[in-house]
Amino acid sequence: MIGGGQGAFIGAVHRIAARMDDEYTLVCGAFSSDPDKSRATGNLLGLAADRIYDTYQQMIHTEVRLPENERVQVISIVTPNHLHFEPAKLALESGFHVILDKPATFTFEEARLLKEIIERTGKLFCLTHTYTGYPMLKEARQIVASGRLGEIRKVYVEYPQGWLSRFEEGRDNKQALWRTDPAKSGVAGAMGDIGSHAFNLAEYVSHLQVVSICADINKVVSGRQLDDDGAVLMKFSNGASGVLIATQVAAGEENNIRIRLYGKQGGLDWQQNDANTLLLKWLDKPTEILRTGASYLSSYALHNSRTPAGHPEGYLEAFANLYRNFALTIRAQLMQEKPQKEWLDYPGIEEGIRGMAFIEHVIASGQSETKWLEFNV
Amino acid sequence: MIGGGQGAFIGAVHRIAARMDDEYTLVCGAFSSDPDKSRATGNLLGLAADRIYDTYQQMIHTEVRLPENERVQVISIVTPNHLHFEPAKLALESGFHVILDKPATFTFEEARLLKEIIERTGKLFCLTHTYTGYPMLKEARQIVASGRLGEIRKVYVEYPQGWLSRFEEGRDNKQALWRTDPAKSGVAGAMGDIGSHAFNLAEYVSHLQVVSICADINKVVSGRQLDDDGAVLMKFSNGASGVLIATQVAAGEENNIRIRLYGKQGGLDWQQNDANTLLLKWLDKPTEILRTGASYLSSYALHNSRTPAGHPEGYLEAFANLYRNFALTIRAQLMQEKPQKEWLDYPGIEEGIRGMAFIEHVIASGQSETKWLEFNV
Amino acid sequence: MIGGGQGAFIGAVHRIAARMDDEYTLVCGAFSSDPDKSRATGNLLGLAADRIYDTYQQMIHTEVRLPENERVQVISIVTPNHLHFEPAKLALESGFHVILDKPATFTFEEARLLKEIIERTGKLFCLTHTYTGYPMLKEARQIVASGRLGEIRKVYVEYPQGWLSRFEEGRDNKQALWRTDPAKSGVAGAMGDIGSHAFNLAEYVSHLQVVSICADINKVVSGRQLDDDGAVLMKFSNGASGVLIATQVAAGEENNIRIRLYGKQGGLDWQQNDANTLLLKWLDKPTEILRTGASYLSSYALHNSRTPAGHPEGYLEAFANLYRNFALTIRAQLMQEKPQKEWLDYPGIEEGIRGMAFIEHVIASGQSETKWLEFNV
Amino acid sequence: MIGGGQGAFIGAVHRIAARMDDEYTLVCGAFSSDPDKSRATGNLLGLAADRIYDTYQQMIHTEVRLPENERVQVISIVTPNHLHFEPAKLALESGFHVILDKPATFTFEEARLLKEIIERTGKLFCLTHTYTGYPMLKEARQIVASGRLGEIRKVYVEYPQGWLSRFEEGRDNKQALWRTDPAKSGVAGAMGDIGSHAFNLAEYVSHLQVVSICADINKVVSGRQLDDDGAVLMKFSNGASGVLIATQVAAGEENNIRIRLYGKQGGLDWQQNDANTLLLKWLDKPTEILRTGASYLSSYALHNSRTPAGHPEGYLEAFANLYRNFALTIRAQLMQEKPQKEWLDYPGIEEGIRGMAFIEHVIASGQSETKWLEFNV
Repeated sequence: MIGGGQGAFIGAVHRIAARMDDEYTLVCGAFSSDPDKSRATGNLLGLAADRIYDTYQQMIHTEVRLPENERVQVISIVTPNHLHFEPAKLALESGFHVILDKPATFTFEEARLLKEIIERTGKLFCLTHTYTGYPMLKEARQIVASGRLGEIRKVYVEYPQGWLSRFEEGRDNKQALWRTDPAKSGVAGAMGDIGSHAFNLAEYVSHLQVVSICADINKVVSGRQLDDDGAVLMKFSNGASGVLIATQVAAGEENNIRIRLYGKQGGLDWQQNDANTLLLKWLDKPTEILRTGASYLSSYALHNSRTPAGHPEGYLEAFANLYRNFALTIRAQLMQEKPQKEWLDYPGIEEGIRGMAFIEHVIASGQSETKWLEFNV
Repeated sequence: MIGGGQGAFIGAVHRIAARMDDEYTLVCGAFSSDPDKSRATGNLLGLAADRIYDTYQQMIHTEVRLPENERVQVISIVTPNHLHFEPAKLALESGFHVILDKPATFTFEEARLLKEIIERTGKLFCLTHTYTGYPMLKEARQIVASGRLGEIRKVYVEYPQGWLSRFEEGRDNKQALWRTDPAKSGVAGAMGDIGSHAFNLAEYVSHLQVVSICADINKVVSGRQLDDDGAVLMKFSNGASGVLIATQVAAGEENNIRIRLYGKQGGLDWQQNDANTLLLKWLDKPTEILRTGASYLSSYALHNSRTPAGHPEGYLEAFANLYRNFALTIRAQLMQEKPQKEWLDYPGIEEGIRGMAFIEHVIASGQSETKWLEFNV
Repeated sequence: MIGGGQGAFIGAVHRIAARMDDEYTLVCGAFSSDPDKSRATGNLLGLAADRIYDTYQQMIHTEVRLPENERVQVISIVTPNHLHFEPAKLALESGFHVILDKPATFTFEEARLLKEIIERTGKLFCLTHTYTGYPMLKEARQIVASGRLGEIRKVYVEYPQGWLSRFEEGRDNKQALWRTDPAKSGVAGAMGDIGSHAFNLAEYVSHLQVVSICADINKVVSGRQLDDDGAVLMKFSNGASGVLIATQVAAGEENNIRIRLYGKQGGLDWQQNDANTLLLKWLDKPTEILRTGASYLSSYALHNSRTPAGHPEGYLEAFANLYRNFALTIRAQLMQEKPQKEWLDYPGIEEGIRGMAFIEHVIASGQSETKWLEFNV
Repeated sequence: MIGGGQGAFIGAVHRIAARMDDEYTLVCGAFSSDPDKSRATGNLLGLAADRIYDTYQQMIHTEVRLPENERVQVISIVTPNHLHFEPAKLALESGFHVILDKPATFTFEEARLLKEIIERTGKLFCLTHTYTGYPMLKEARQIVASGRLGEIRKVYVEYPQGWLSRFEEGRDNKQALWRTDPAKSGVAGAMGDIGSHAFNLAEYVSHLQVVSICADINKVVSGRQLDDDGAVLMKFSNGASGVLIATQVAAGEENNIRIRLYGKQGGLDWQQNDANTLLLKWLDKPTEILRTGASYLSSYALHNSRTPAGHPEGYLEAFANLYRNFALTIRAQLMQEKPQKEWLDYPGIEEGIRGMAFIEHVIASGQSETKWLEFNV
């Protein structure tokens, strides 16, 4: 693992996700740019002292020279955005599979380069757009694919948070500090942090691609350097339209990412606060409540849950589904077997490139006086 | 009553709303442009034969000559939009108070003229933006006024319907026929029919005015003459921003108009499907569930409900609140007394003018390639 | 109307319910045992002075001598329980149809007598078990009748309130005073006031009859003379079992009466807080959400709503459905026509007798040390 | 681990729970009474071949002779009920800490003996009443302890399931087979399997003890040997009363265990389907929505969650909280430190004894014709 020192939120989440299904063992790490902190974290995590590294470069260079049955196989990178590309590049080029926190990179250009590296090295790559790991979103995607809803007409996604309603970066909030700093986060704040998740959800569930956007991007809290709020009108490849809302200043909101999507015959509605429920709506029939773990679900949804219906699975399980599917795919590759189609349903570099394009386009659109900005990627 | 013949939806609703609190008696009507239908409706409603009229002109001209204690006092106009202005003008100029279904008129210009007529005649005027009659929206407006939420930053309103997902106007659906006909509905379809409600809610609850908009307006169902879908980015007078969504092609949706609004300290969330609940959200405290009829509510909310907490009141009660408050205000005027402030909280011509401006601006913005359209009214 | 003077809750509700569908006009009343109060109420309601009476006896004796086209046709009795039987008897025997607030009478014996009087006089009789007026409970009853759920196995009903958590009868709360007074309420407090509603719902929806019970009946608030809380184990005629919970000391609860019922194949769930929704659950299929006003509902549900799906109808509309169906049935009788089956679906004296039997049995069971008490009526 | 071979539900859950917080490593197991199956399971789980055992006796006898730094420290027993006591006894007497699936034992007498063994050996013991691991139930317990709700008056618990609506034991459903077999499950079916959870919740949250009960216990599905349904009236030590519902024949229900509890001033409501929400109700104030991870929660709730508010945690996390707190307590013992009070909040043998007493009393009461059965333990 690269990054994820003490105090980091997402590093701990990655570690739980990796452990849950017993497919990974944490064997080494460079957990911080501060070697003392890296060491302290590694010790807490019970790593062997010689597998705790001062820098990610040291880690990769050392590990690559270990005997094959000892060295790390997969490297998770959970650093802030400005430290995504270089470690990922080095890891891939050194022969390791990579799991990378989203958004893929600091710039769109880096994402494009990363794709070349992945293709060139042939290593496997997973981008942790967590929400696509929820079983009921996998079901949603399968329902759209089945055509039962008819041609898709509308896609609404939203991600309302309230935790940046105050000037948290002035109150020494570590999570806020890097996310609102252009040098670490990139050109976007809220749009990169959570807007990119909503965008990914829209494309993942709908099987459509955004082709043009019109964005209203705001810095609401005074003193803030990056956007903390925005809304985006979207047009999709098939003529459908939609709206994306992402804000971090909706005081009192937690993390309730939601997608609603409507076709000619019906629609669906999912939100994280009720993550094990998918509402399926119809023109002339009662709405149906689909539930995680139920026997009538698709193989995609069933493969991604661990308990019978009625035992709530949540965010950590969704995250673990990414790790698990990536592991199953890696193992299939090792065994020279064909991975099951359900295993391959994890986000990769294509989603990373789309996400980085979203970030750059949405900020550009926010600054533009022209209404529609084409989204050519 | 003018309009509201058999088969009309909103006419029957107006009549129930008028009856509920025993403040009105239906005494006369011109219920249809077809005299036979008008007569049939009047008979069904138990009106005296000589108070059922062939045309609204006949009705007003006849009624005005009846003795004061016999003639109608308030005229409800529940016709399609193209038949709002002329009857309202005639009624007001003949000395009657007027209740008018929304949107106010066929064009913005008519609304402006109607305001002059109202001011000149001194008669009272109520525009039935129903949703503002809900007690928990009255509470929401009072909470914003109290400043407890802090300066308002975000306003999200949405009104998703699905009933026009098919080409209903080709299936002889009477409600669809006039609403999708530019000659009867005006320049807008969905935006006039339901978008204007959402717009009214945004301004009513926030105490703010929209100052510029950017709209994506769509005719989704092929063959349809007017918009059946749209989304609008909005900027408010205090710098706040927001999103308005109105669609009639969200297959499977009913009528769940919703407002979410966030200030510096907290936010609120109301939706028609759970109309007796208002969620009040806070940065650092648990969300509170405010409920119709509860003792802790403001005088505005309490005045507008009829039963103790836990006895659900709905759409018809909200509608009746408009009628009741209008009646109480008329009576106060008759008695030369000062109406209570709670009674005056019903929509009037200002809301009508803002609504017609919304309709014309939103359609113009939809057709424009410029991003922001100023909203100067 | 008999009873329902100023300050009464249920009298005003009856009047709104009667007005809503324009089937009734209030023409006379004896609104209170205090003639001054009766007069004041009648004046407020705009009655002619000579139709406001000092006593119900005076009212009935006077009205019966008026010309047929002037005199009242239906008498609503909305007094406390100890004043149900005598006015109902006199009204029926004088030739008037009667609407009576529940529970039917002060004692079971009175209910039995009332049934004889109704049969003897041939007049029509409606008992206002409000909740059976909700369209989605009518749907629930039809679904059970259809056999789709299979043989019924479990029936859970509950009616939790919190408004008697304190000694309200010591705080001059008029609603509490008579309800907790054995001289006015009868042998039961909570069980008569709300338990009887829950019992009615259980039998109405299930089409089953309770055959034995085991009750735990409590006076929780010290000083209270009647029960304010209880729970009842129930056995039904077909071997099914169930639980009834009714309490007025669940601090913070409003009025959320609920029924859940399970058959061999599926179940249903309805609660007043979400009154326009009926959940239909299945062993191997997604739960379905049935909604008031939707096209797929039975004729019973559709007949009992006034607006399209998505316009919430509530408690007053449910109450009005009882009044409306009773009026339609009376009119059919007048016209010597056969009433539609949907009109006849309002509670009458059979429900009244079952309810009074419930009240007496449940109190007896609460005092007994034997487990099961047979319920033979 | 003892038990939990392939196909077992709860064994896999225990293993995930143990892994989640990195406090346990699975080192050995006797996963089945069938040695081949035990071996296959152990291989799948990646255990060293010499740590996979044919029988639990072999495992304990072998492990106890391993060097201290190699041998297992904690033994998880996840077998059917008839195989709880003997392995637990042997493990404890051999010096191992024990985690035991509920209910504690096959009979009450075994539970009493187990308590003696635990006290005699001084080893630590955890009983996996999962639901008490949910952060919002820990909060509920703290709120009751704080006295804010006033003296507790009512406790309602329910655990509705539908999965045994059919004769599953005749369809080769492994989960159903042992649970409905008196030789493996004990005197109770549903009451032991899920009723005991509901009972535990009632006592855990209320801080009260049940002192008498009156039960209706049913075998609904024909051919079934043990109860699959029941309801229990309960009296508590402080005079409060309550109802417990547990059924496995509520067709269409999943696993929505729920507790509602009311004191003089207010109440609370929690259900597994919305596990991260705790509703706090008040006599004269709005209901409050408390949420997992929020800053205003008690140290007990915060200690038992892993992510910020809005990231749903579910059943596996609740289970993991038991494992984690047990591990923290064991480590404190090893370090001869005082465990934090939050760590000690896991269920142990006292809960096991109360649970077994519940099972035996509830079945006895179900068979009795006397109403109340004293609950003396």
